[in-house]
Amino acid sequence: MLPQWIIEKKRNGGILSESDLDFFIGGYVRGDIPDYQMSALAMAIYFQGMTPDEIACLTRVMMHSGDVVDTSGIRLAKVDKHSTGGIGDKISIPLAPLVASCGVAVPMISGRGLGITGGTLDKLESIPGYRTGLSVPEFLNVLGTCGCSMIGQTERIVPADRKLYALRDVTATVPSIPLIVSSIMSKKLAEGIDGLVLDVKCGRGAFMKTRADARALAEGLTRVGRAMGKRVTALITAMDQPLGRTVGNALEIVESVEILRGVGPEDTTQLTLLLAAEMLVLGGVATSPESALPVLRGKLKSGEALEVFKKMVSMHGGRTDVIDDPRRLPVAAVRVDHVSASSGTVQDVDAELIGRASLLLGAGRTKTTDVIDPAAGISGLVKIGERVAAGQPLATLHAASRDRLEAAQQLLPQAFVIGEGTPESPPILLERV
Amino acid sequence: MLPQWIIEKKRNGGILSESDLDFFIGGYVRGDIPDYQMSALAMAIYFQGMTPDEIACLTRVMMHSGDVVDTSGIRLAKVDKHSTGGIGDKISIPLAPLVASCGVAVPMISGRGLGITGGTLDKLESIPGYRTGLSVPEFLNVLGTCGCSMIGQTERIVPADRKLYALRDVTATVPSIPLIVSSIMSKKLAEGIDGLVLDVKCGRGAFMKTRADARALAEGLTRVGRAMGKRVTALITAMDQPLGRTVGNALEIVESVEILRGVGPEDTTQLTLLLAAEMLVLGGVATSPESALPVLRGKLKSGEALEVFKKMVSMHGGRTDVIDDPRRLPVAAVRVDHVSASSGTVQDVDAELIGRASLLLGAGRTKTTDVIDPAAGISGLVKIGERVAAGQPLATLHAASRDRLEAAQQLLPQAFVIGEGTPESPPILLERV
Repeated sequence: MLPQWIIEKKRNGGILSESDLDFFIGGYVRGDIPDYQMSALAMAIYFQGMTPDEIACLTRVMMHSGDVVDTSGIRLAKVDKHSTGGIGDKISIPLAPLVASCGVAVPMISGRGLGITGGTLDKLESIPGYRTGLSVPEFLNVLGTCGCSMIGQTERIVPADRKLYALRDVTATVPSIPLIVSSIMSKKLAEGIDGLVLDVKCGRGAFMKTRADARALAEGLTRVGRAMGKRVTALITAMDQPLGRTVGNALEIVESVEILRGVGPEDTTQLTLLLAAEMLVLGGVATSPESALPVLRGKLKSGEALEVFKKMVSMHGGRTDVIDDPRRLPVAAVRVDHVSASSGTVQDVDAELIGRASLLLGAGRTKTTDVIDPAAGISGLVKIGERVAAGQPLATLHAASRDRLEAAQQLLPQAFVIGEGTPESPPILLERV
Repeated sequence: MLPQWIIEKKRNGGILSESDLDFFIGGYVRGDIPDYQMSALAMAIYFQGMTPDEIACLTRVMMHSGDVVDTSGIRLAKVDKHSTGGIGDKISIPLAPLVASCGVAVPMISGRGLGITGGTLDKLESIPGYRTGLSVPEFLNVLGTCGCSMIGQTERIVPADRKLYALRDVTATVPSIPLIVSSIMSKKLAEGIDGLVLDVKCGRGAFMKTRADARALAEGLTRVGRAMGKRVTALITAMDQPLGRTVGNALEIVESVEILRGVGPEDTTQLTLLLAAEMLVLGGVATSPESALPVLRGKLKSGEALEVFKKMVSMHGGRTDVIDDPRRLPVAAVRVDHVSASSGTVQDVDAELIGRASLLLGAGRTKTTDVIDPAAGISGLVKIGERVAAGQPLATLHAASRDRLEAAQQLLPQAFVIGEGTPESPPILLERV
């Protein structure tokens, strides 16, 4: 068997067998098959797609390119969440302790931010001392004690994806459903989970701009998860305006703590509860999302969810005093309000522009080697449907320097539309798959 | 500008500009752009194609990746031929001296065989002493003196193609019209020619199996040549049965000399004359192919074309006594006839199977590093429409060992169809583009 025969088979629209994929992905991870053959195959997959069985097979082969976490020592059901990424999406941070407080374990392996999309690891690392790089035994220890642990990818989990993702990024082969699905699912299934809820973002600030694209991705993800014997639900959620009122790392930790205290913004609180409810059902501790909601609200109100979060942060080496007093989190040197030029109702807030402004402020990376500023970002974002008076702030910008502030300020006027209509606050949940 | 932006543009069906192609191909030749980005672009081109202008632009950029031969010191019109490759296609060898004997210069840079397709260089090198690796000044000297010279690619002519072709071979991106056309035309136009005749093979033993595919390639090639200010004609010719009566290197030299003596097989003689007639028109020494034919026949009859060939071989360091007495060419250790099991008329001879048998005999290469056996091959091939008696040879196999002979013999029975119908000898010329 030669690698080019497999490339040719896919190029001609053929279906790759398990042995084809084993040979190719295995050879690629070992370095026997060079990048130039992998990139040609990735481009052929971009054009010819893959059948559901083929995607499941690719996912399995990728997952088995490295270690799968053995969570069998933990008696609780193990359920995780994956979001396809949006502006201001800090949901994982309040979600994991909230779900853990209800008796479902959440073994969460997250990523870093790139481009306009933030990353859970970067947000957690704005808590002084928080270590995202735990070993697998440490991870299992925190998970067993707190019911949740949030770490980064290890070298030994899905090495195929680490190598392939970097290659796709520079060969214009990122936006391919089979490649996206196998990348996401191989990593999530390697966590040793029983169930998974997927938050597939849809809209201007998301990777999937249309409902049809979001649905195709949601179906691809759930189908593979179910083919591999897992309980999987997907929610398609709106990503036109930013999620919540903050974008940026430490600023999103502040909002996460507010959600856990029951005083967070309405949209992020609602999305946290919706996803948590699905996870309780997947974990077998609730019979329906509806019946799970009062239980979850109780855990916020009682402070139990916040306690789990503090315990997890502490076991990760993080300072918990910053949770009690968020003013102790990193603070930006320069802060300025962006005020409204006119009075009226917020008609629109452009998530993508807010994401780009946040990137310019220093909260994100344009390339993987960039260093982020934990204190940078945007807070106090107004939401669609809110009334504002002329001169009243629409958002507050946080940066390390005036230069960064000014770069971001260029984008802000186009990000907000203030007018006379009275738009309804758009729904957060678009569809359940 | 990042290479992946150009890949993405083509992936999305965009048209690459001259500066895009300059940046990408230039970067690739210099080593700034790695193979994995080039192979992803090649696969995107495979799926999205290129406009005629884009192909012309790619051809120009590739041609200028290295040296273009300066033939301005030669007063005669310079016209070459390119064949897309077929089984038993030795036409270049009698053609170049025949055309040169009529006052049109033929600066021919040829390739080696790979797979079932033979290469002119390998055939010429079966003449003891013949050097295909002349320097450009030596090439121009032979061309100026004999009117023709036949050499191999130099390091400095179209280095982009050398690198890209090797990559396409291992990434399943060979069969793409834009990539084939730019590969062929960049090399041919770098010879410093005024005109070019293309022999686009069509049929079972050719790269293009259907008339539609062959026509698309012929049109792509002629369009680019004309866009670059050259006089170009294409003939689509049949490649279902092997061309002539021999396949193999020294064996094809024997047949080439027979053609030059006017005693060659009917089909190879006819094709040589048809292509030569087009070249005389392109070179401005004949007003129509029809009027060129008697002149060409005269040059065969008078022995002038053969004299040019001997002079060229001699200037390349080759022994001319093998031309006077072909029995002095390399001879195989083992020879055996493949005889007909029944009496009847030859209904079919499968060019592809004959090509594969010849490869097994040692006449070709399965990979570029294989060493070929100049004496190996097949001679005395019967042609469609000929009568054979049971026990009469259909072909003679030549090899260095019994093992090789036996491997090839497995294929032979399927290659010939003997029956009772009286098929007409199929036409060699299918279409003129």
